[in-house]
This record gives sequence, structure tokens and C-alpha cells, in this order.
Amino acid sequence: MTVSVVDAKHMAHALRLAEQGLYTTQPNPRVGCVIAHGERVVGQGWHERAGEPHAEVYALREAGAEARGATAYVTLEPCAHHGRTPPCADALIAAGVGRVVIAAEDPFPQVAGQGIAKLRAAGITVESGLMREAAREINIGFFSRIERHSPWVRVKLAMSLDGRTALANGESKWITGEAARADVQRWRARSSAILSGVGTVLGDNPQLTVRLPAGDLPRETFSPTRVILDRHLRTPAGSHVLDGQTPTLVLHAASAEVTDDRFANVERIAIPEQGDALNLQAVLSLLAGRSCSELHVEAGPTLCGALFAAGLADELLLYIAPIMLGDHARPLMHLPSLSEMASRWSLRVVDQRQIGNDWRLQLRPA
Amino acid sequence: MTVSVVDAKHMAHALRLAEQGLYTTQPNPRVGCVIAHGERVVGQGWHERAGEPHAEVYALREAGAEARGATAYVTLEPCAHHGRTPPCADALIAAGVGRVVIAAEDPFPQVAGQGIAKLRAAGITVESGLMREAAREINIGFFSRIERHSPWVRVKLAMSLDGRTALANGESKWITGEAARADVQRWRARSSAILSGVGTVLGDNPQLTVRLPAGDLPRETFSPTRVILDRHLRTPAGSHVLDGQTPTLVLHAASAEVTDDRFANVERIAIPEQGDALNLQAVLSLLAGRSCSELHVEAGPTLCGALFAAGLADELLLYIAPIMLGDHARPLMHLPSLSEMASRWSLRVVDQRQIGNDWRLQLRPA
Repeated sequence: MTVSVVDAKHMAHALRLAEQGLYTTQPNPRVGCVIAHGERVVGQGWHERAGEPHAEVYALREAGAEARGATAYVTLEPCAHHGRTPPCADALIAAGVGRVVIAAEDPFPQVAGQGIAKLRAAGITVESGLMREAAREINIGFFSRIERHSPWVRVKLAMSLDGRTALANGESKWITGEAARADVQRWRARSSAILSGVGTVLGDNPQLTVRLPAGDLPRETFSPTRVILDRHLRTPAGSHVLDGQTPTLVLHAASAEVTDDRFANVERIAIPEQGDALNLQAVLSLLAGRSCSELHVEAGPTLCGALFAAGLADELLLYIAPIMLGDHARPLMHLPSLSEMASRWSLRVVDQRQIGNDWRLQLRPA
Repeated sequence: MTVSVVDAKHMAHALRLAEQGLYTTQPNPRVGCVIAHGERVVGQGWHERAGEPHAEVYALREAGAEARGATAYVTLEPCAHHGRTPPCADALIAAGVGRVVIAAEDPFPQVAGQGIAKLRAAGITVESGLMREAAREINIGFFSRIERHSPWVRVKLAMSLDGRTALANGESKWITGEAARADVQRWRARSSAILSGVGTVLGDNPQLTVRLPAGDLPRETFSPTRVILDRHLRTPAGSHVLDGQTPTLVLHAASAEVTDDRFANVERIAIPEQGDALNLQAVLSLLAGRSCSELHVEAGPTLCGALFAAGLADELLLYIAPIMLGDHARPLMHLPSLSEMASRWSLRVVDQRQIGNDWRLQLRPA
């Protein structure tokens, strides 16, 4: 890879453009593109919504004739196949671009390497891998879904300093402050789906929708699908998650029966069981098959603990409030008992910051 | 108060000098002194050890004849009474200092305001209160002991992300990494005493001494007294805390009897009981009366919880390791059960930082 400081500057710019699509591109990846002659930017764009043009197309439109001989910076390998829009590799070739710098290679079997090959075959210089990690991070769910056939599972938890999420009587409103709760809404908004369990539905009757003040997000954000694990179909009539206000999927055991119309407004799918719970791997496979990239989990200690203990939680988003609730209060997660310290679960802090009076840690298994 | 940027610079310098005595001045406060003409420093000093000269004396010695007409910056009001050394106010007057800037007023009944009055009576301009909070913070235990007749109680805890301090079987070696454990040694070293309970002695047989690599602290640091709450005198023969290697105080109920020589190398004192425990307020009063300024607590969930719930814990020093131990593991503190969120204990984060792979939060009741 032969790149310069100017290349790095433009790619960083393209990554910021890609982030503009954080709340809207699903199920597509977030992609940004900058077209430049040396320092001078002649075109820029980002992918905004599935079915609409890709980032390269917007940038080429803006560049017009100036695209000729320019360098195009794209955060994801340009597509080489006909999807809902024509191949971007062809558009770059047609515009006479002289060089293409790519951050991350496309993981899609139909595309991987083909975009680069097509560009090179047309005599265009291609550099690939500049800021690859940052580009993959923006689309962490997309890469997970295509490469691992599983969504990126992000488990959100809010706890006191002593690791408690609710009082013994179940009261949990509110552990964290307003700023942290608004932050959670933004994480919900960038997700393809929000997963919870019937225990949380029974205890808290949550809406599991994105609720943010007007102006905080782009107007037409993607609405994450609500996914409820309800093995025995116990979700009561009148629960917010059954209101049909947003796409909802209730997953249950094949043996579960329902004789009323509680589930009239939602979709129901039977999932294989494993022990005394639904098979979580099967749940994730199902969701990946339905284009779920980032799965946001807001659930109780049983489901969160089951995902974590099975190694299925890719990330913890842990909000810590500077309060104590005491050892009678509810634990963070139910996990198997350990007999030696060597068996402990280790994580690595990916990010930490103060949000209002609370702290947010972003952690991944070490 | 009429002070300038130059005054602030010199006082900040004097505070850094005071910190040099962090591990050695006990039971005296940590005090620094700078003598200057405008920007130019002509003398500086700090109090190093009880019985040895005060900060002002060292600074005046260094300044010599240049002290005449200079400004002296002292982090604590100069003493006006004859203690183990002659009054510093007299020394400043004799040296012909023209102006004295003080950070914190002395809380000692014999001294409070008298140092300032004496200086003013001699025609010296005195400004008081510059960086008062920082100066009080350095001697937080000293001020607590004199003003509240109680040591500053700092409870050290090391926990996993899910708020656990040991496995169900008691194993707790090690929750945090080497860097965090070395950091704990420095907090021990600055304390007057280290408090623990017999449960910890029985479970872990700790040494509760300061152990740091050579060169990490001044050679002759003060050795904190070990204080063990052992209501029924159950500390077993051969426990490290009974080895007589460092001053040790075992506090017990008046009714406790001992028929062997287990406690031959330590001091024992009976303390009134309160319910089914020793009266913690009585413990703190006793320690304050014995010149204990900062009390470092390293104990189990019962003693830590009792101090915290009673409002006697002035500060939590909380080390958080990026690991999970699960809900079978031991809780951070035993606290009374709460029936409503409004009763939760609120704290405020005074300081937070990464230490090795762990996080350290310094918290005080809000």
C-alpha cells in the first residue's frame, strides 16, 4: 500500500461522511466517498438509504468532469455487481478516475475483490487497507453478519457501582441519569433490532422503540425490529411490544400454543430449544438471515448472562451510575458459578467516557 | 484577598512541596513554603517529619538575608505557639518578611487565627485562602481529625465489573493487576492506620503492611498502625497481624476473654458494643484521639458495608477490573435492603483514572 498524509486526510474525511448514514442505511453498510486532486476535494458523498445511490455516485455527481484523473477515496470496496443500483466500479471507470484508495474490502461473496479487480483491469491504480479497522468498526454489524452469519451482539446494561440493575422488588427507574438514557436511545437507533426477553416485558412493559427529541437524529431513521424471546408465549395482551407500532418478532418454542389474538400485530416464529431456553445461536442465525447487523440487547440478568456465558455477547455497553443499591438488589447477570479465579471472564475496555453523572464503558471479551 | 497570578504560581509550588511530606509527616500535617521576591524564588522548604523543623524554617534558612521584604507562601497558617519547635510566625517576623500568603487556616484550637493575628500585629500584610481547597485536600485526614474528632475514613475495594470482590469460595487473588495493587500500597503508606476485621484476618491472613519496591517511597516512611476489629478475640495464633512487626491494635468487646499469649506483641483495647458489632463511632473516636488522620480500610463486605451504611465512610477508593465473576461471587458490601429507588446511596466521583488494565474511582458521598 502506497499512501500519503493527504490520502489519510481524505480517507478520514470519507469515514466521517460514512458516519452520516449511521441511522439510515440499513441493511446496507455505511459508506463514504471523497474525490480529490491532491489536497483539493472535488466531490463527496455518502450512502444514505437502501435503494438509493451509493456514496461513489453522489461524489462522482458532485465532481462532474473534475473526476477525470482524480483519486477516489472509498471506505468500502466499490461494488462490482448489479444490485438495486448499477456497479460503482463501472461508474468510477466511466468517470475516468485515475486512482482509487479503499479502506475495507467488501466481505460479500459476490463482491469481495471483484470491485478491485475490475478497477485494476481498467488501468486504475488501487490501494486497499488504509484505515481498514476504523472502516470495519463503522460497519461492525454488517461485517459480522456477512462474515460470521451472526449479528454483532451489543448488550446494554445500566448498573450501580456495586453491580446492581434493580432493587430486590424490581424497581429500576432510574439507575442512570437523563443523558445516559438519551445515549441509549442513539445506540438503539443505529441497531437493526432490539432484543429482550419475556421477563423484562412482564416486569417493565418496555416500548423498545427509539425515542429521541426532534432534531437529535435524521428525520427518517430506520426503525429497529423488536425481538422478544418468549418461549411459552406468555407476553400479556396490552403489552407495548404487541402494539404493532413498529415491526416486532416474537420467538417461541415450537410447543407453545396461543389461542387468543394477542399476537395479531406481530410476527411469530418457532425456534429450537436448548435445555430450558430457546437456542440462542439459532436466534442469532435467524436474525442474520433477516439482515440484522447490529443487535441491541436490553434484557434481564438471565438472557444477558446466557448470551455472555455462551460467548455470544460481542460487546457490553455498560452504564455505571455513582450510586449503591446494596447486595439485596438484583445482580448484573446470572452466570455459572466459578470455582477458581483463573476461570473468570476477562474483557477489554474499548471506550470509556463520562455521560452526565454516569460512566459508560464499552467492553469486548478479551 | 488580593492575590496575583504570580501569587498563584508560588502557592501551587508550595503545595507541590507540601506533597513531598505525604509519607513522612504524621501525625503532623503536610506543609510547604516558598519565599519569593516577585517571580524570583529565594527560599523553599517542606515539613518532613514530626519533631523536625516546619516548612517555613527550611525556606527561611535558604532565603537568608533575602527574606527581608519578601513574600512567604505557606500552605497552612504558620503556628503561633511553642510546640516541639518555636513558633513559625515569630520566625517570619524576625526574618523581616513583608507579606505572607496562606492557603488554609490552621484548625488547631491553639493556633487558629493566632498565627495570622501575630503576623498582622507585626505589620505584615497577610492574605489567606488562596488555593484553600487544595491545601485542605492534602491534609484531609489532619483537618478531619482536628475539626471532626474523627479520622478521614477511606475504604479501599477491588471488584469485578459486576461488583464482586471474591469467588463464592473466598478466592480473591487477584481481582486487579499488579499496577493497581502497587497503587494500593501507596494509599496504605500515606495513612495513619489500616483497619480490617477479623473475618478478613481469618480468610486471607493479610499482612496489612506497606510493601513497595525500594526507591518507590522516601526511605523512612511512617508505618501505619494495623487496627483489627475482633469483637470476640478470634484472631488465631500465627496470624501475620499478630507478628509484632509493626504497631498493631486489636479492638474487642469488653466481654471477650483471652487465656493464651496470642496477643503478646500487640495492644488490645475494649470498645463498647452496638447491636452485634463493635461501636464504629467509638472506634473512630479512639483512633482520632491517637492522632489517626487518614484511616485506610481494607476489609470484607460486612465491615465496609457497616461503615458505609452508617455514613462513616468518607471516601471509597474503588478499583474495577475488566472481568466478570458472576452473581454467585461475593458482593461488594453488605447493605440494608432498599424498598425504593429514592433511598439509594448517591456518591460523587472525585477522581477517575486507568491504572494498568484496571480503573480506579475515588468517590465520596454526594
